[in-house]
Amino acid sequence: MLAQLIALDWGTTSLRAYKLAANGQVLEQRSLSLGIMQLPKTPRIIKGQACTDGFELAFDEACGDWLDAQPDLPVIACGMVGSAQGWREAAYRDTPANVANLGNSLQTVRSLRGVDVHIVPGVIQRSPLPNVMRGEETQVLGVLHTLQGEAGNDLLIGLPGSHSKWVEVADGCIVHFDTFMTGEIFAVLSEHSILGRTQQKGASFDGQAFDRGVQVALSVDGEIGPLSTLFSARSLGLIGDLSATAQADYLSGLLIGHELSALATAQRRRRNSVHLPSIILIGNAQLCARYSRALDACGFARVLLAEQATERGLWQLALAAGLITPNPSR
Amino acid sequence: MLAQLIALDWGTTSLRAYKLAANGQVLEQRSLSLGIMQLPKTPRIIKGQACTDGFELAFDEACGDWLDAQPDLPVIACGMVGSAQGWREAAYRDTPANVANLGNSLQTVRSLRGVDVHIVPGVIQRSPLPNVMRGEETQVLGVLHTLQGEAGNDLLIGLPGSHSKWVEVADGCIVHFDTFMTGEIFAVLSEHSILGRTQQKGASFDGQAFDRGVQVALSVDGEIGPLSTLFSARSLGLIGDLSATAQADYLSGLLIGHELSALATAQRRRRNSVHLPSIILIGNAQLCARYSRALDACGFARVLLAEQATERGLWQLALAAGLITPNPSR
Repeated sequence: MLAQLIALDWGTTSLRAYKLAANGQVLEQRSLSLGIMQLPKTPRIIKGQACTDGFELAFDEACGDWLDAQPDLPVIACGMVGSAQGWREAAYRDTPANVANLGNSLQTVRSLRGVDVHIVPGVIQRSPLPNVMRGEETQVLGVLHTLQGEAGNDLLIGLPGSHSKWVEVADGCIVHFDTFMTGEIFAVLSEHSILGRTQQKGASFDGQAFDRGVQVALSVDGEIGPLSTLFSARSLGLIGDLSATAQADYLSGLLIGHELSALATAQRRRRNSVHLPSIILIGNAQLCARYSRALDACGFARVLLAEQATERGLWQLALAAGLITPNPSR
Repeated sequence: MLAQLIALDWGTTSLRAYKLAANGQVLEQRSLSLGIMQLPKTPRIIKGQACTDGFELAFDEACGDWLDAQPDLPVIACGMVGSAQGWREAAYRDTPANVANLGNSLQTVRSLRGVDVHIVPGVIQRSPLPNVMRGEETQVLGVLHTLQGEAGNDLLIGLPGSHSKWVEVADGCIVHFDTFMTGEIFAVLSEHSILGRTQQKGASFDGQAFDRGVQVALSVDGEIGPLSTLFSARSLGLIGDLSATAQADYLSGLLIGHELSALATAQRRRRNSVHLPSIILIGNAQLCARYSRALDACGFARVLLAEQATERGLWQLALAAGLITPNPSR
């Protein structure tokens, strides 16, 4: 089956490439450690020209053979590749953002091969504390498409990660979102703070320690906030009540618990209701499993996991941009 | 004037030595970068013996000449020197803790010189999320002594630092305290997270940026908590609304604002009153100035700075332990 589109999810640390056929069917996919902060450095000949540009080299590794076979395939990319540190900056689009207005705003960069790479802009919410995303907007739009109008005010889309995003949608638009730096804070505390010194790593997931951390965040003692409760990962260890192998997952549960507790409070305030929305999670399966567990403890009753959000979002954006046609002739 | 006591404040990174005369008068003081995590390594002869022990070497550098002049001077020390990683572990004493019961619990280690070093134990509060301190208990007791019974339920003693402590006192006792990891979190975020990448360091204190951070923490937007508001240090920079030179002090204000906002809420809950206690701050002058500024913004109306807290506390503990007498004969 002939391909119709090359779709790239190009972030800070990784580059995922999809070769898509009619209706967005995935023919082949690849995952490379060639994010924009770790581009290849070894020069190579590309289309007869000596090349040292990291973006060109990564692009060629990701899909050069696909383009050799079908040189006219359109290419679309989302993620940090469109940031100021990326291949070509694609300026943020304001909320509300949907497939139509993002699809109309693709930025292009012509590669050495002569192929244009169409880059999806990120989204900015100009609230008093502004929020930005790059890559997540595409995943959210991919999920919204599969819901086909069912998505309403009762839905919140979560994208756990270094910087977790929680996205409110309405009528196919991204209308509001919050960011939590939970994942990055967990990483820097584990690697560089006193809390990491007593953590014994490499152990398998300790669900009991994780749940304990979540419960502390949700408890009366947790109301003092993460800047204070974090210290318990050390003090419980000092009194022999939290083993070295349990400390990392306790800390993870504590931080995720504080994130979700704050999220629930913010959602109730914004919706002016005790009722919490349904959740759809997008992302790494292991991390989503942690969040599902903690969401349940926080009273979010309905949690679903999304699949193929990125490639579906890129397909829809390519359609909206006219890079492909809904009913290809062959 | 003859000395009566050598008092050491021996922490993780620094070692401060005081030579004290009658009534705790400071005859001489020294500050060395010889904390328990950065002890000297170069072997030396001490009292005719080749010595490689880091604690002995640091001790000798700090006060060997004072002991040469007066070999019978008693020595007392507080801080991390009494931790499991210290010279000799002095097990934590439970709250409530005062001069009498801590003075009765000094742990001793005999130095190469034959002089006993008396080490003050830390204090533990066995709440559901336990809290511990080492060194701060001595400073608090030093302040309490100067207050001579005026200290009551309306007082909270603050010790800003890597791990800030907020200590409630009653009848000369440490009865309750909270820890916030604000200082260490600021340091690891500035050095190792994405927030540090755009910070331009070395600029002088930007009070406006600091105050802005405090106000964000206290605002309705700040109610979502530090895990989320922290991202604004990046997103405000991205939209050109927070310069590179302002970002570090904005982040500092944001974190300290969240700490003090949580502290005020916890204090009001614990006291079952909207009234906030008086504050006495102990510590580094520049850091105390930041906290004074933020405390004012948070509604803490009365804030005083303590002086000579450590040496006064060590003097009182040495008295309680009988190492010195209140009215020396000479």
